[in-house]
Amino acid sequence: MLDRYLPILGWLKTYDRGSLTSDLVAALIVTVMLIPQSLAYALLAGLPAEVGLYASILPLVAYTIFGTSRTLAVGPVAVVSLMTAAAIGNLALPDSDAYLAAAVALAFISGLLLIAMGVLRLGLIANFLSHPVISAFITASGLIIAASQLKHILGVDAGGDNLFEILVALGAQLGHTHLPTLALGAGAVVFLFWVRSRLKPLLVRAGLKPRLADLLAKAGPVLAVAVTTLITAGADLATQGVRVVGTVPQGLPSLGLPDFDAALWQQLFVSALLISLVGFVESVSVAQTLAAKRRQRISPDQELIGLGSANIASSISGGFPVTGGFSRSVVNFDAGAETPAAGAFTAVGIALVTLLLTPLIEFLPKATLAATIIVAVLSLVDFGALKRTWAYSRSDFTAMLATLLLTLLEGVELGIIAGVGLSLLLYLYRTSKPHSALVGKMPGSEHFRNVDRHAVETDPRVLTLRVDESLYFANARFLEDRIEALVADNPRVEHLVLMCPAVNLIDASALESLEAINQRLKDSGVHFHLSEVKGPVMDALKHSPLLRELTGKVFLSQYDAWRELRADQPRENIATIMPSDDSLRDSTSSSCNGCSRSWDSCNSP
Amino acid sequence: MLDRYLPILGWLKTYDRGSLTSDLVAALIVTVMLIPQSLAYALLAGLPAEVGLYASILPLVAYTIFGTSRTLAVGPVAVVSLMTAAAIGNLALPDSDAYLAAAVALAFISGLLLIAMGVLRLGLIANFLSHPVISAFITASGLIIAASQLKHILGVDAGGDNLFEILVALGAQLGHTHLPTLALGAGAVVFLFWVRSRLKPLLVRAGLKPRLADLLAKAGPVLAVAVTTLITAGADLATQGVRVVGTVPQGLPSLGLPDFDAALWQQLFVSALLISLVGFVESVSVAQTLAAKRRQRISPDQELIGLGSANIASSISGGFPVTGGFSRSVVNFDAGAETPAAGAFTAVGIALVTLLLTPLIEFLPKATLAATIIVAVLSLVDFGALKRTWAYSRSDFTAMLATLLLTLLEGVELGIIAGVGLSLLLYLYRTSKPHSALVGKMPGSEHFRNVDRHAVETDPRVLTLRVDESLYFANARFLEDRIEALVADNPRVEHLVLMCPAVNLIDASALESLEAINQRLKDSGVHFHLSEVKGPVMDALKHSPLLRELTGKVFLSQYDAWRELRADQPRENIATIMPSDDSLRDSTSSSCNGCSRSWDSCNSP
Repeated sequence: MLDRYLPILGWLKTYDRGSLTSDLVAALIVTVMLIPQSLAYALLAGLPAEVGLYASILPLVAYTIFGTSRTLAVGPVAVVSLMTAAAIGNLALPDSDAYLAAAVALAFISGLLLIAMGVLRLGLIANFLSHPVISAFITASGLIIAASQLKHILGVDAGGDNLFEILVALGAQLGHTHLPTLALGAGAVVFLFWVRSRLKPLLVRAGLKPRLADLLAKAGPVLAVAVTTLITAGADLATQGVRVVGTVPQGLPSLGLPDFDAALWQQLFVSALLISLVGFVESVSVAQTLAAKRRQRISPDQELIGLGSANIASSISGGFPVTGGFSRSVVNFDAGAETPAAGAFTAVGIALVTLLLTPLIEFLPKATLAATIIVAVLSLVDFGALKRTWAYSRSDFTAMLATLLLTLLEGVELGIIAGVGLSLLLYLYRTSKPHSALVGKMPGSEHFRNVDRHAVETDPRVLTLRVDESLYFANARFLEDRIEALVADNPRVEHLVLMCPAVNLIDASALESLEAINQRLKDSGVHFHLSEVKGPVMDALKHSPLLRELTGKVFLSQYDAWRELRADQPRENIATIMPSDDSLRDSTSSSCNGCSRSWDSCNSP
Repeated sequence: MLDRYLPILGWLKTYDRGSLTSDLVAALIVTVMLIPQSLAYALLAGLPAEVGLYASILPLVAYTIFGTSRTLAVGPVAVVSLMTAAAIGNLALPDSDAYLAAAVALAFISGLLLIAMGVLRLGLIANFLSHPVISAFITASGLIIAASQLKHILGVDAGGDNLFEILVALGAQLGHTHLPTLALGAGAVVFLFWVRSRLKPLLVRAGLKPRLADLLAKAGPVLAVAVTTLITAGADLATQGVRVVGTVPQGLPSLGLPDFDAALWQQLFVSALLISLVGFVESVSVAQTLAAKRRQRISPDQELIGLGSANIASSISGGFPVTGGFSRSVVNFDAGAETPAAGAFTAVGIALVTLLLTPLIEFLPKATLAATIIVAVLSLVDFGALKRTWAYSRSDFTAMLATLLLTLLEGVELGIIAGVGLSLLLYLYRTSKPHSALVGKMPGSEHFRNVDRHAVETDPRVLTLRVDESLYFANARFLEDRIEALVADNPRVEHLVLMCPAVNLIDASALESLEAINQRLKDSGVHFHLSEVKGPVMDALKHSPLLRELTGKVFLSQYDAWRELRADQPRENIATIMPSDDSLRDSTSSSCNGCSRSWDSCNSP
């Protein structure tokens, strides 16, 4: 029991010196990578830079204790930071203190929600975010984030809630571009793109091992930070208008619960839910991908608790919402992290930075942080996914495109909500007109196939409809309409068999429809039968009046139905099936699954 | 083409004297029934009594032209009138003129929405209202309507938006009960209940035919109206405080389009949509039930146009939202109506009443109308449905109970929206953890069954998982988790086969999950295969990279998969399957559905 909620008890007892060394090396590399990221994402969320550092200490320790992934690296990430900015930006708060307090509250609510979902084992709520919707949302977020950072590169003031507003505001400010800032910022962007695409092959050619070259290349942002800070400090660019991070309080954050403000919490609730879901989905897919590479396992429900406790930890140490980050987890994995202890060591690293190195950050240009964000988020932009989805499914593509456009034009929250709503509606639409076919018997076999595709035996008095979908409220009416049409178009029909091998569920709506169909067919003088009903579906039907009221029977196999319902054929036809007539009688009792009532006008012997 | 949109062209050309007589008789009976109903439902909607008459003239003519049911009787109905009152009551309008204008606009918007849905063939949007939700909603509406009418019976003023408020307000007013009103109202209620339950058997015993007795009993409300009006006029009860309908303008309504008020229309849009959907669902199920009794057909999409044009007609003649009513359609059917012409004749009847008889309505007590409403709507209350649904499905019962309680306590609009939302979520929940089973081969057969339920042959190196549900975003993660767990728990596994006979759909989310599973299994050194993939699903997969990247194969049958994947067994085992070895080689090519790439380490001969 305790093991389930405290995964640390599992790996800690076998922790040895080898793991310690591996984890320490990985932690060092991740720390170096995390310094610029945590500062930059705080900036993106509209918060003071040091808040990013605070969100990279205790949350990592909490995840080490409660998380199930061996290698997930937790902290501030781009999309969640953007969502934080959007959530708090909506509130029209009086000052930056209130803004920070709202961010801290957001992390707390998000943490509570995640833990609650974990304890209630509701991880599956994240399922409502379909992959195309998430993918489109992240692409759109990447574009918005990149656009929102351009103002720092240009050294101008320009805001906006959506891509259109941001670009218009930037365009209006182009004339006020601050050239020294642009030089630093554009230089950093070019350098970082070069590092990302060219440095690794260069290092490999110079004789380094590919993995080491890859890890060194990840240190690019730190190099950009160091160099531009030195230039800015040395050339005194801050007094010439290059905006810098400025004085950052030295020392660790003070701990404390966030103030409870019912009105504020209520306003933040939906945002916190969306942030929790998006963060969880992203984090779990990273964790699962990495775990599979070593045949390890993660527990999604416990991951909710791990991420929830990380957010609570962030909140009580003055931080903002966090989750598992993709690129830094991959770095952690590649650097050889073996246990979650690497995360705790990273936390120690960031704590030391916060204690000792913050004075060095004073002259760090915001343009450099913006450059690291732009280069990082553009890798999230994946237009190829649109193309792949278009090729596979128009329906999913529609949800994807709507999410992309709405997120870009109406903002992140409306975008994701609309995307979720639309994928639900489209799924219902797709299953509301299920594939169905009139079937007939393949000559010389016991198989039944679509009459439109195969030369099959049919009988105008016995129609068999096969429906290839679970029957539930979204397609209950379809079934009624389809059968009404069948009977109206086939005046000689006496028996209608609904063949159910692909029906995994019959809900109460569909059950009522079946009862209505049974009653209407009775009014029309047609017997209604079922065949090949699955075990769990049959179990449920036994609790309903349908089986009692059915004018026909329930047949185990469609072949049983065919033999029995054609038993009152003219003599010459019966003769041909005589050899199996005994087995027919045998199967009659077994074919009815305990409801073997014959109907009024039954002609069978 | 014209026939499709004008069903009248179909039946009018064969219209004969016999049908004319039948339709006239039915129209007379429905007219008598419709007079008190139309007055009462206008009162329920918060509108002047004559508006109910207006809504019972042109809409019936419009439905005669555009509707597809031979016997549906259109006009004001209880639930839609309640929803109209709720929609307009929310708006805080200045006076009763504005209230009436809003009702007229609501009918117009509702008509436009219905026609648009019909032209776009979106009848299936009504599918989102599951049967349990509709049933609970109607039961709750019936209770609210009955409670809201009690004030007329007591002769007091008491309002409220939900059942709780209404009952509290009534309780506070009990002391002010107006005794003459109560005497009339309670008398009418008792009389109407007696008519409903006892009059028919009495008439039958007196020698009448059951159907005629039934029809006569339906005239009970008209008798109550006549008698109480006479008493009120004769004893001059109106001056003693018995509230009466009062002066009603004589003559037909003037025609005209409603004023376009963008702000008002926007406010009414969601209400109009809900009214359209609820009205359509009710109407279509009545129409289908009656049509089946004569082996006739209705077209749901054309029904949308028929009901939409009825609402437009109601609006331009100063009426409020209408739809097909259950009890009056049954009366129309039982009275022998043969064609929609009966509806047009009923319209003529109501028009004559409006022209000639409105002076007689002046002294009609509101308490009598309230009594007819109460007796009518209590037949809508069906608590038995709760019990039946509980027995069949806890999930549907949850949606039902939530709809019932929310409608009673929070009002009709929130109730139905919450019901729809909840049934969607519960459906997703039910399919998000689909039934799945590890299967093994039944000895001596080619069938594969659940290893937990049957003594089957298994192989620790070949695991087969059968999933009994379509794969889509709600269960994509479940599948990833399930397979991750399987592989972690079975270290000897080399091949994992996903058996898909019940998979009717794989959406883009599930496709990505399958790709992720394939990649993760590859990282774990396990080959990933599919078997028994359905035709349409396979067709879709061919447009995806999955088949190209798959580390395993796609097998037509699970038996093919079993034979091939076990082909590298120790000699003695292979020997036993030797006889079929040739057919195995033959089937290899056909089993791969065009993607017959063998994987890297394939050991087959």
